[in-house]
Amino acid sequence: MNSKAVVLVSGGLDSATTLAIARSQGHACYALSFDYSQRHIYELSAAKKIAAQLGVEQYKVIKLDLAGITGSALTDPCVAVPDKPSDGIPVTYVPARNTVFLSLALGWAEVLNAHHIFIGVNAVDYSGYPDCRPKFIKAFEKTANLATKLGVEKNAFKIETPLIHLSKADIIRKGIALGVDYSLTVSCYNPDAQGQACGVCDSCRIRVDGFSDVGIDDPAISTL
Amino acid sequence: MNSKAVVLVSGGLDSATTLAIARSQGHACYALSFDYSQRHIYELSAAKKIAAQLGVEQYKVIKLDLAGITGSALTDPCVAVPDKPSDGIPVTYVPARNTVFLSLALGWAEVLNAHHIFIGVNAVDYSGYPDCRPKFIKAFEKTANLATKLGVEKNAFKIETPLIHLSKADIIRKGIALGVDYSLTVSCYNPDAQGQACGVCDSCRIRVDGFSDVGIDDPAISTL
Repeated sequence: MNSKAVVLVSGGLDSATTLAIARSQGHACYALSFDYSQRHIYELSAAKKIAAQLGVEQYKVIKLDLAGITGSALTDPCVAVPDKPSDGIPVTYVPARNTVFLSLALGWAEVLNAHHIFIGVNAVDYSGYPDCRPKFIKAFEKTANLATKLGVEKNAFKIETPLIHLSKADIIRKGIALGVDYSLTVSCYNPDAQGQACGVCDSCRIRVDGFSDVGIDDPAISTL
Repeated sequence: MNSKAVVLVSGGLDSATTLAIARSQGHACYALSFDYSQRHIYELSAAKKIAAQLGVEQYKVIKLDLAGITGSALTDPCVAVPDKPSDGIPVTYVPARNTVFLSLALGWAEVLNAHHIFIGVNAVDYSGYPDCRPKFIKAFEKTANLATKLGVEKNAFKIETPLIHLSKADIIRKGIALGVDYSLTVSCYNPDAQGQACGVCDSCRIRVDGFSDVGIDDPAISTL
């Protein structure tokens, strides 16, 4: 087995758990984050701490200027972040985000000769996002193996989505069993000036409910 | 017909011709270049001039830090640019480059509601690059329509590759007929300090031969 893996790490709960799973499978992990004009940078400092806590080989941040090309609430200050769940594709959807992230992960993976690319997408809680669905992941994997030298020569690349069918509670149980420190994670779309999670946005609600299902308090959201 | 198109423009002969073809088909064109730590920046200033000459709606440059993740002669100062054609996949191959470029073009296209993405790949002269082959393009197009809101709702996106089966001479003939000013284009892998093409690298040889087949001198290479 090729044991190197590139793992996309955002600073949130899902990607922290994904990184812990990749390590538990014996991979030498190379964590990758993107600095893409997101509304707050707390998630990048969280990502760095999580990567250190979980012992990666290398942690890399790629700067990416998406501000001019996107129209999402996560990157565009003119679009309000909603405080209640929406039907259909959420306004927090960032056009082509996972395609862009996976493409850059693929480039790094080829240079590292890493055959595994882990991404913490989840089709249960985030089914509104087209680029979190299994059929997107499968199509990207096929594209990756047609796009690259290692893909053409060895059909090398595998896009790994260990969370894709898990509930938030199952993700949290798995992460706790693997030693993830969830107090380091930041999932909030709308934190205050100190980086404190709001507790009411879609993303906060989903994780608070997940911890509640597991029967413990969310260590990253103190005031609920 | 949806008439907006995002066109990838590198500053080279092929992408200039591609832009002219997109315009001749009636598209309102949005030209996109990447500043990705390539060895020389002459191609970016060429891209800007070409976009202006061919009358685009908007010209955008996205900065992209690929230097840390690639191992190609085009971005890595430690890899020498070859002066003769190579067998197999050339060392000038940049891991996942077209996947990354098309992904970002896709994000911008979705924001613009542009359904067409033009890329000047060519499977004749550059068959060594895995991400210039028709089957890569087809797989990417499928991925794009699974990855995005417009793709899911309307199967909107079409990756257009008007040069893919043309010889260099045919590309040049088409471009001349459409008014492309090839003296503005830069294709050389290894220009001198003034931006003058070397005339001997793979990329120069291919275009010099193409102009020769058409029976005219390459206006961008003065000293051969």
